[in-house]
Amino acid sequence: MSGMTMSQKILAAHAGLSEVKAGQLIEADLDLVLGNDITSPVAIKEMSKFTKEGVFDKDKIALVPDHFVPNKDIKSAENCKCVREFAIKNKITNYFEVGKMGIEHALLPEQGLTVPGDLIIGADSHTCTYGALGAFSTGIGSTDMAAGMATGKAWFKVPSAIKFNIVGKPSKWVSGKDVILHIIGMIGVDGALYKSMEFVGEGIKNLSMDDRFTIANMAIEAGGKNGIFPVDDVAMAYVKEHAPNKKITVYEADEDAEYDEEYTIDLSTLKPTVAFPHLPENTHTFDDIKDIKIDQVVIGSCTNGRIDDLRIAAEVLSGRHVAEGIRCIVIPATQKIYLTAMEEGLLKTFVEAGAIVSTPTCGPCLGGYMGVLASGERCVSTTNRNFVGRMGAIDSEIYLASPAVAAASAVTGKISQPSELGL
Amino acid sequence: MSGMTMSQKILAAHAGLSEVKAGQLIEADLDLVLGNDITSPVAIKEMSKFTKEGVFDKDKIALVPDHFVPNKDIKSAENCKCVREFAIKNKITNYFEVGKMGIEHALLPEQGLTVPGDLIIGADSHTCTYGALGAFSTGIGSTDMAAGMATGKAWFKVPSAIKFNIVGKPSKWVSGKDVILHIIGMIGVDGALYKSMEFVGEGIKNLSMDDRFTIANMAIEAGGKNGIFPVDDVAMAYVKEHAPNKKITVYEADEDAEYDEEYTIDLSTLKPTVAFPHLPENTHTFDDIKDIKIDQVVIGSCTNGRIDDLRIAAEVLSGRHVAEGIRCIVIPATQKIYLTAMEEGLLKTFVEAGAIVSTPTCGPCLGGYMGVLASGERCVSTTNRNFVGRMGAIDSEIYLASPAVAAASAVTGKISQPSELGL
Repeated sequence: MSGMTMSQKILAAHAGLSEVKAGQLIEADLDLVLGNDITSPVAIKEMSKFTKEGVFDKDKIALVPDHFVPNKDIKSAENCKCVREFAIKNKITNYFEVGKMGIEHALLPEQGLTVPGDLIIGADSHTCTYGALGAFSTGIGSTDMAAGMATGKAWFKVPSAIKFNIVGKPSKWVSGKDVILHIIGMIGVDGALYKSMEFVGEGIKNLSMDDRFTIANMAIEAGGKNGIFPVDDVAMAYVKEHAPNKKITVYEADEDAEYDEEYTIDLSTLKPTVAFPHLPENTHTFDDIKDIKIDQVVIGSCTNGRIDDLRIAAEVLSGRHVAEGIRCIVIPATQKIYLTAMEEGLLKTFVEAGAIVSTPTCGPCLGGYMGVLASGERCVSTTNRNFVGRMGAIDSEIYLASPAVAAASAVTGKISQPSELGL
Repeated sequence: MSGMTMSQKILAAHAGLSEVKAGQLIEADLDLVLGNDITSPVAIKEMSKFTKEGVFDKDKIALVPDHFVPNKDIKSAENCKCVREFAIKNKITNYFEVGKMGIEHALLPEQGLTVPGDLIIGADSHTCTYGALGAFSTGIGSTDMAAGMATGKAWFKVPSAIKFNIVGKPSKWVSGKDVILHIIGMIGVDGALYKSMEFVGEGIKNLSMDDRFTIANMAIEAGGKNGIFPVDDVAMAYVKEHAPNKKITVYEADEDAEYDEEYTIDLSTLKPTVAFPHLPENTHTFDDIKDIKIDQVVIGSCTNGRIDDLRIAAEVLSGRHVAEGIRCIVIPATQKIYLTAMEEGLLKTFVEAGAIVSTPTCGPCLGGYMGVLASGERCVSTTNRNFVGRMGAIDSEIYLASPAVAAASAVTGKISQPSELGL
């Protein structure tokens, strides 16, 4: 038998097995079970159908109301009330009160709840984000969340993997978002279907933690079961800052691990990249982007609402102004990021430029609130999905891009890259 | 014939009449016609039924999308699109793009669009706010807005008046909100039905402009046609700052003007006041308020989202923390107030205290979004209406209060005044 991938090693260890192979069905112990205000109420109801007992471990469940909060309507308020009452009844340590903390996939790493070697499931597609820290984390449905909360276990089909060998150093305005959009454009939205996307190579040192969170976050947009990065000095420094007292286990892929495919990504050759409607794989660089007028820009979300993202956007917007008629909505992903951005003067830059700053919320990404599109409107968004009608009207259009491109587009009123502003 | 009230003088002048009397029907020239994202689309549609011409004066119309913005759903996005297209077609000078500027009744005075002596109608109940600056301003329906936009005129039944003689100086934690809640508690929600509430007296110098805006704003909650203050040095300083180039006319009530009733309000005797569910007249002071646990606090709105309000709330929250399980939502009323509050460190105080800060919006006040209540939940709110179901579920409860009381309540988790915190 050949060696195991990094993902397989984490799964094997959590299943109490010395080895696993792709395709094998296993049951594994979970380090964390996550739910939000949309998925948790369903899970709580399902859980009540098969057990009267409480949760398996009050410290290993995270409940983050972040999608429709602060409550956008009575239904979302009732959902949040359901989650709150469950959290109180079960003494859930990591319940984050409505609208007080932030977006789950930015919040949990910040709170030190996702560390290298962890096995994490979350009832949200973008749970794969934590692979940036060398955890195996993946999105599941609300019924699996229910079972996970009750038993602390989940079943998995062990995934095979694709290796992405990252080399080189990106140029100034190329960030993690461009890397993952480039990859999805290359392999397609089903290019990694149920596979691990394992990122390796000397180029990784040139990607910040926030770049890596963005890349791992969108693994699901290529169909990936998970995305995962090795635990290098950058990752360890992050863990030391955010989870100083946590015991961690670092897993590495075996040298003879098998991969279905291997790609080399030379960061130095990448350009600012935009995914056109209506799929993340529909990528373009500015070599073939003509004048496309827009109506709105959103900078935020679990994909690109972190401090590095805001710094880049502020650098582009500083001393400039959002174009007439354009709404530019900036959403720091957590209260901590909001505070840091305020202290660094970034929020001031945004407001002076004519943008508005929202409290943390997933709102506009899923057409929830805080920037829903009218018919025929176009939005450049740093979010992760540009499906038909995702942000509003059925004939509205979403262009996925990096914070740099989003900010530059806000200034010009059309899809633009920073170089068009002389940057 | 006896003399005219201040309100009657403004109406007479705008009707081209030397005198008017209470009950008289007049047609008058308008200085400003206001609409928001809820009322303007209806007015625009109505207007299209009776004219193919444009608006009477592109400089005398203000369109402020502020209720469901940034757009909370597809319907609100379509409404805002309707307003935007109308504004562009008619070259409306004072169109304020979706979510980029702020709440109408805080924004228009700040922009210098409402000055002493003006006659203003707005398709929003709280248009009476501008009486704080010595204007006659009142809320009308969307069809009157349509006629006003087309013709620059509106009809009025000249109101009689109630005189409120303000004397004394309020103690530290008593603000404009306590003054107006006290008055509404005294005369009832129909106590000033279709009458002018004219505030006079030496005590007015002890009320800041923001106090006066709050008081005039809630004249409608006593049924008033309008609320109005004399134009003193404080008002003139405000006008000089915000509308330095505008020609203004200052009107004063005749000495022999008739009033239906007269009340004296001694500010020095007022206490922090709370309006209990479900009417603004249901007022209590802390002498008879027992332990009432709450779930949410909202500090903001056209009533209390101005810089003085935020300064007071920050003074209470500074170095303290929002109680466990309480959501505290702070909403600066305009982008300018947001920026000032940031520069003064107020927003930092809020976030460090565990509150969240929203971009300007009317959202929660009318159960729109950004803090809708679930069933059975209680909210202390600095807004203006506590009607059944106004902020969410039919059995939720709203307690109207000042920013000081709201902030203190956020800290204790029950309805509290600052003195309970040793302030």
